[in-house]
Formats: sequence, C-alpha cells, structure tokens
Amino acid sequence: MEFSEHIKTANVEDVLLRQPLHPPTRGTLCVTGHHLLFSDRAEGDTRHVLLLLRNIDAIEKRIATSSGTITVKCKDLSVLRFDIPGMEQCLNIARSIETLSSLDSVLETYPFFYRPADHSLQDQWGLSSTETYYTQMVELHDRWRLTELNRDYSVCPSYPTSAIVPKAVDDDMLVKVAKFRQGGRFPVLCYYHRKNGMVMVRSSQPLSGANRKRCREDELLLQAVIEGSDKGFIIDTRSSQQAQQARMTGGGFESKACYDRWKRLHRQMERGKALQESLIKLVEACGDQSPNMDRWLSKLENSKWLSHVQTALSTAGLVAECVERDGHSVLIHGSEGTDSTLLISTLAQLIIEPCCRTLEGFLALLEREWIQAGHPFQLRCAHSAYSHARLQQEAPVFVLLMDCVWQLWRQFPLALGFSEALLLRLASEAYASNYGTFICNNDQEREAQGVKTKTHCLFQALLKPSEREQYTNPLYEPTKLAIWPSIHPQSLQLWRGFFLRWTEQAHHLEEVQEEIRTMVTEWTRLMLSPDVSDLPTCSA
Amino acid sequence: MEFSEHIKTANVEDVLLRQPLHPPTRGTLCVTGHHLLFSDRAEGDTRHVLLLLRNIDAIEKRIATSSGTITVKCKDLSVLRFDIPGMEQCLNIARSIETLSSLDSVLETYPFFYRPADHSLQDQWGLSSTETYYTQMVELHDRWRLTELNRDYSVCPSYPTSAIVPKAVDDDMLVKVAKFRQGGRFPVLCYYHRKNGMVMVRSSQPLSGANRKRCREDELLLQAVIEGSDKGFIIDTRSSQQAQQARMTGGGFESKACYDRWKRLHRQMERGKALQESLIKLVEACGDQSPNMDRWLSKLENSKWLSHVQTALSTAGLVAECVERDGHSVLIHGSEGTDSTLLISTLAQLIIEPCCRTLEGFLALLEREWIQAGHPFQLRCAHSAYSHARLQQEAPVFVLLMDCVWQLWRQFPLALGFSEALLLRLASEAYASNYGTFICNNDQEREAQGVKTKTHCLFQALLKPSEREQYTNPLYEPTKLAIWPSIHPQSLQLWRGFFLRWTEQAHHLEEVQEEIRTMVTEWTRLMLSPDVSDLPTCSA
Repeated sequence: MEFSEHIKTANVEDVLLRQPLHPPTRGTLCVTGHHLLFSDRAEGDTRHVLLLLRNIDAIEKRIATSSGTITVKCKDLSVLRFDIPGMEQCLNIARSIETLSSLDSVLETYPFFYRPADHSLQDQWGLSSTETYYTQMVELHDRWRLTELNRDYSVCPSYPTSAIVPKAVDDDMLVKVAKFRQGGRFPVLCYYHRKNGMVMVRSSQPLSGANRKRCREDELLLQAVIEGSDKGFIIDTRSSQQAQQARMTGGGFESKACYDRWKRLHRQMERGKALQESLIKLVEACGDQSPNMDRWLSKLENSKWLSHVQTALSTAGLVAECVERDGHSVLIHGSEGTDSTLLISTLAQLIIEPCCRTLEGFLALLEREWIQAGHPFQLRCAHSAYSHARLQQEAPVFVLLMDCVWQLWRQFPLALGFSEALLLRLASEAYASNYGTFICNNDQEREAQGVKTKTHCLFQALLKPSEREQYTNPLYEPTKLAIWPSIHPQSLQLWRGFFLRWTEQAHHLEEVQEEIRTMVTEWTRLMLSPDVSDLPTCSA
Repeated sequence: MEFSEHIKTANVEDVLLRQPLHPPTRGTLCVTGHHLLFSDRAEGDTRHVLLLLRNIDAIEKRIATSSGTITVKCKDLSVLRFDIPGMEQCLNIARSIETLSSLDSVLETYPFFYRPADHSLQDQWGLSSTETYYTQMVELHDRWRLTELNRDYSVCPSYPTSAIVPKAVDDDMLVKVAKFRQGGRFPVLCYYHRKNGMVMVRSSQPLSGANRKRCREDELLLQAVIEGSDKGFIIDTRSSQQAQQARMTGGGFESKACYDRWKRLHRQMERGKALQESLIKLVEACGDQSPNMDRWLSKLENSKWLSHVQTALSTAGLVAECVERDGHSVLIHGSEGTDSTLLISTLAQLIIEPCCRTLEGFLALLEREWIQAGHPFQLRCAHSAYSHARLQQEAPVFVLLMDCVWQLWRQFPLALGFSEALLLRLASEAYASNYGTFICNNDQEREAQGVKTKTHCLFQALLKPSEREQYTNPLYEPTKLAIWPSIHPQSLQLWRGFFLRWTEQAHHLEEVQEEIRTMVTEWTRLMLSPDVSDLPTCSA
C-alpha cells in the first residue's frame, strides 16, 4: 500500500495548536504515512511536535464554513487541538488521520520503517528468554528440563518455542496436557525461588468441562511440580463461582478429587471489558473540569480502578506469601492465562526477587512474562481510553501492571532500580511505539512478520547509555528482602504521574526528580565511580 | 497544686506496650505530673517512650479481674495501647491520665516546667512582630503609621500592643472603629506588596446589625487604605447569605452604599464545629481497618476535608490575584477575624511573597499572623479528633493551614525553604508542646501569665543548628515568582504524611527524605559552603 493514497492534503499552513501546559502556537501541520508533524513558526527556535499516528485513539472534528478544529486524543492520554483554516483541508487531514492511525497490517506500522542512526538491525534483540533463564538457574537442572516441543508453535500457538517443565514429564505427555489446557497453555515454570527451591508455575484453565473430564498427564505434571513437598497452591484468578461457570463452556478448574495435593484459592480479578471500562471512567474523571471535590472523589470511586490495583497487589502478595513465607510452590491461572495470570506472576516476582528489581532485571522479567509468554498486546492495546470504537478485545492489563509496580515503587522508593519515567514510557510504548517489542500478540506472530530482524528492540534501546540515565532510580539501594506492599485502601494512591501527566502538577514532580537526578550524578562524579558489583543478578 | 495528689500509682512493672510499626514490648510504665514514660526492659539498649500528658486526647480502658488495657489516643493522632497487670493499678493510672491531661490552669502546663540545658529563659523570645515588620517596610512609612493605642489591650483584647494603620486615621478615630468591629478587631495592615505598593488588611466583621448602623471613622479608615488607587476588594470568608444573617445577631458587612470604592466578594469557608467534625470523620476514616476501597474513598469524600483544603487555597488564590495580578489592595474578614481570616492572609502571603517561604520567613509569618494576631490556640486546640468531650470551641484551623501549606509544598517542591517535617511538627506542637509559643489565646493572656519570661520559644528552638537541619528543604531553590497553586480537585491530595503518619507507608517516604537530605549534606560538604546570601529577605 502507498501511504500517499490516504494523504490528500499533506501540509497546512497557519494551523493553531492548543495543548495543555503550552501557550497556543501557530505553525505548519504535516501528515506523513506514520506521523503528524507540527512545526511552529516562532523565529529563532522552532518547536516541533511529532506524533505517531498509531498513538491516536480518537479524533473529533468540528467543521465551520471556512475552517475546522480537530481534537486528537491519544492513547498516552494526551490531548491536542488543531484549528485548521479551510474546511476542505481540515476534512482531508481528519480523514488521513482516521485511516492511517488504524492500519490493520502489522507490516505497515512504523517499527518496520524506523531506522535511527545509532541502531543496527544486527543488534541483539531482547534481553532474556526461557533458555537463558534455564541456563542461569542451575539448581533447576536436577528436576526440571527445557523442552523445545513447541518449536513450530503447534502445541501452543501463544507460547514461545521453549518451556521449562518437570523432568518427570516427557514431550508426549506434554502434548496431551496441552490439549487439556485452554489454548494449549500447559503449566510451565516461570520462577524458581533459590532461597527454598519453591517454584511458580503458570498455565491456562483445564478443559474439564461439564463432564468433569480428567487428564492423567496433567495430574502427573502438577504432581511432579511439588515432588518432595507436602502440597502446592493453585491461585485461580477467578471467583469460585466463575470457575464453576467456566465448566459450562468447556473450561474448568482442578478438582480436589483429582489434584489432592493441591489447595485451590480463588481471587476474583476484573478482566477484559470491565477493566477497559474502568480505565475509560477513570480517564474521563481525570479530564473532568468541574471544580467540585465531591464529584471528583465520587467519580474516582466509581471507576473502580483503585480496587483493581488493590486486588492485583493483594493476589500477588498471596502468591508471594505462599512461595516465600510458607514455602510452597504455586500454580497461577485464570481462564486463558494470558492476562491476570501474567499480572500476578510478574508482581509476585517483583515482591520476592531482588534480581527483578534492577532496570535490566525488570525489563527481562517483562520480556519473559509478557512478550514471550504471549500477552496479546495487539488485541489488548488496540484502543485506549478515548476511542468510541466498539470494544473488542481491548483491556488495559499492562497499564494495570505498570500502576501496581508504581504503587510498589512508591511504597519502597529505594528498593527498585528503575524510575517512574520508565513505567510511564512502557505504558505508552505498549500502545504506540517506534520499536517492535510490543507489536503482535505472541512469538509466533512476531516470527512470521520478522519482527526480530526488521524492527528494533525497545528494551535494548532503553539500556543504551543515552537513555538509561533517565530510567534508573537515583536513590536505588538494593535489598535482598521481599518488599511486601501494603494493600490497605489508605495506602494505595491514584497514579497521578500517569493519569494526570498532561496537567500542570505532574510537571512540578518531574522537577524534583530532575533535581535529585542532577544531584546524584554530580555526587557520583565527585565521589568514586559507583560500585555496580553489588547489584543483584540472576546468574548463578 | 501538687501533681502527686493525682498520682496514686506512679510505677507499674511488666506493662505490655502495643503500638503500630513496633513489635509489642514489655517494660515499666511511669506517670509523672506531665508525662507518661514507658521504658522497655530489653537488655542492652533501653527504649523509652515519653508522652506529654497534654498530648492525650482520649483514653479508653478495658478492665478485667486481674489486669486491664488502656488505649491512649493522642492529639497528634498516634495511638498507644498498654496492657497493665492489676485492676487497681490500671484504674489508678487511667484516673491520673484523665485528670492530668486536662488541667485547666495554663501555669500548670509543661512549658512552665521545661528547662532544657541548652536553652536559657534570657534567650530572645519570638522572631518577628508588628514593630519589626513596620521597621523593615520603609516604603510604608509615608502613608502608614505604627500605633501603640492597644498597649494595655483595652481597645482590642485579642490584638497585640501595636498595629499598622493609615496615617490619615488618628488614635481617637481608631477607638471608634474598634467599637464598630467585633471584638474590637479594627482593620490593620498585615502585608505590604513591595512590587506594586498594594496591601492586605484584615479585621473582624463590622457591627452594622439589623439597623444598618454606620461608622464614619471605619469608612474613612478603609478609604485611606486605598488612597490613590481606584478601588479595593473585600474578601468576606462567609457566603453572602451568612453575612446577611449575621446582621440579625449584631454583625454584618460593608454595604456598597457606605463603602462605594470597595468591591465585596464572598467565599464560604467552613468553620468551627463543622470543621472539627470534618477532621473527626477523616481521622476515623484513616483508622478504618476495612480492606474495602470503595468504603475508604466514600468516607474520604464524606469527611469533606479535601473540600475545605480546596476552598482555603482557592480563596487565598483569589486574594493573591487581587493584590499581585490585578494590583488592588484587599481587606479580609469573616466574623471574628481570628480563624479563616488568618488562614487566608497567611496562604495569600505564601503565594505571592518569596520572603515568607524561607524557614525563618515562614515561622515569622506564623508568629505575626497566628500567635500575635490572636488565633485562640487554647480554645481551638483543646481537643483533637479522638476526644468524646462535647465540642466547645475546638476547630482544626491551624491543621487546615498546615495541610494547605503542604499542598503548596507538594505542588512547588523547590519553592519552599522548609520541609514537610516542619509542618508535621508544628501541627503537633499546636496541640501539645514543651514550649510556650502556642499556649494561651492571645498576647494579653500570654503577657498575664508571663509566657515570654517563664517558657521557651518554639520558633527560636527550631532555628537552632541541631534542629534546623531536619526542617529545611534540601531541594530549596528560591524563586521570586508567585506560586499559584492548582486547585483542581485532581491536584489536591490527602496529606498522608500527617493523617497516615503512624502507619507503615508514611515510614517509607521518610526514608526518601532522609536519603535526599544525606545526599545534599554530603554534596554541600564536598562543594563549597552554600551561598546563603541569595535567600529572600524582608529587610529593606
């Protein structure tokens, strides 16, 4: 496809840009295949606003006879308003934005065109993988093995090619287990707790169905997981009632009778449409201009967003308690095993594992638990809070994760090696990016599109010295202890840095961060160079 | 009176102290005339908890046959629980606490007994006064004079001995004006804006009453205030309806007819009992152990506290706008002129005047606008949020001020020279203190009790090198600009550092402050000594 087909008017002069925090400015607006570019005409220093079309969630147009206004609402929650002279031009621009911001084909998205000078397509792609994790965790090798069973994605389309499974279970058995789990997502190890040898395993729901079907291999696999200990815990991210109901549509849960050494605990987590609607309500509340305090607090409550944050942190805390405090292995799953399951396994690892709390460690964790584990980013992040499009499979699970991590970061401001800026950046990149990291829904799709050879890797880019500095926490002091978040309602706060980031006040907070950063940099420069050998690392 | 009369049991062994954030400890509990002292028996390092009895807002006792539990709820919102062996002993201790924590006589309070080694009663008392302010502001001297009219407190019992008034008004006229204003609080200058020569003046309401009485001298005084400019603004901290109703009980407002060059604006601020109840509800909500997020948000909303913060900041912003942006002088008053009036004049000065934003400048501002201006601390701070005593004249106006200043501090983290710790300390000291600064209701009472010769001054103590460090803002970067607070509901937050300070999470935030402080100290030590000559100062 030629992008130019969709661009009737490429340039408009004398456009007025209005944007919170900035005075209105006049300049030229250009539409290209992937961007909206506004350059203001102020003499001396030209100001550019470059906006990825993919970042645009919704546009609103108001057309008068000789001009029009286009309001662009972005997936990163920013809002820009362009006053455009000429009705025709305005309509053309609006049409271009509408079409080009929602191109279906992945290959036409910007990551396949982005070629910055300091990156090479030969650079390493990604930071971590199941293989490297397995190699690092030598203690695992006795009882666990790496299987390449899924090398052609035929056993589980949403899993990567390799998985860590108990040695006691061979590939033939795994194939049967995969058939018994929704989407083929058989139980795989995602975390090994060195301190006591316990593990976290995740999967999708078993397909026991209305007839309470069993799968002997599945039972054996789970038995093998807790080999040598008295019992394990299954954390089901649905209510007990929801799990029961799932049987009517072919799903189900691990019954006490068939999995007698596993204790099942249910924690109802909101998902899918309800979660998306919660985000929409919250963003609407944040944008409300009413000066009424009661109205704001009541809308905040009504959105239920903070309740979802609380439930996620509390469920992750439960998993962490099972593994770290009580010394039991845990299996986590809900229905598909691609959303709440990953949210909980990621948060639980952050709580108990210091290695996940460095900048690299955290990105590697996201890569394993979200990118490779098959969170369907393309479906979930197709639209954000402003779109009026009918909800399909959108859900802000990843934003919820970032929010929960921010709560941890706020409660333990010294314990995490990365900054709030990283969480903000990641939350935006998941929706629209120059990089290939968050595109497609799983490894198979990324392989088919050649993502790893034709796009650049965000995580690698974030670790480059030029970027890295702003994403580290200047106050980081590694601790080997678990960081148990308080989940009292009073302890959880709205993530203002994200939800109100385009308003005045978030601005002031950045100043503080900047000030602290400058100070630490200066300080470090004056003192000896920092000793990085103390950082937690996962290597054996 | 002998305190010992009220102490039947002075010492109890084997008492168990339970307190949030600390493991329970066993030790000895002593009651003295002014303190509750708990020393734990752990070998090696003895831990002491020393609690001013005056700090105790309410006690609850649960007595069993051979022991009892006393729960002590403090005015600084902390809660301590003592398990005491022996029913008799427990009852004795409870009785002592009840009596000694609410002694009526000011002379029996601890400030009159507190004699630390590094203080002398000959030390300077206080930091600022009307006289010093007048001396500094030489630009005032043309049109304003210092009157000693109130030297024996006969004209206005709640004012200090001197006041700054227009030269055009002589002392005889002032006496008449004082008779026309509630409690004799005639209009006095509290702030001179060097940038444009405008002033802030404050008073109580005029006693126009049902018959619309006039006072020619009052009209002349206000006329003289705006001499040379076209008009002034009266910010009335009551709704227009409340101001009308006040006429029925002898009060009133400045009518357009009699004060034709003054424009009156009404801003309804909550006061007295309603404000106290708001605090009680908020503290109750903060202590609620329910894990329900909706319940918490709904209780927060219900307390209305944040609405009061918003109204105060918005009214202060309005005053600041009049003076700084529009270049008009302002008269502020509500009814008595001892509460909301002072709140607004203080906040407005912080917004527009850089000199008030240093540690010294802020304390001096509090001294002039609260201590000397006659905020009745003894009445307002008799009880805090836990007491079941019938509300008399209690109202947390000063706590509300501290909260509003904290909001400013949060929105402009570099612009204020003092730390959150200072606000926390002041909010506690106003209710119970070793120092004489916050005792009594006005200058006259303090004079009668000999406060300035028989107690130590808190503000002087806070500026001693040993204390000072923790009360300065390590990130302070003076700005000459006004700091306009955002009063969007989304921009205002619960002051967690105060309302949740005794819970886990506030704890973590202190770590950050500590870390930053250490860094800055180290940094400053390494660099040249800091250049303090840049600090804003009020001297001419």
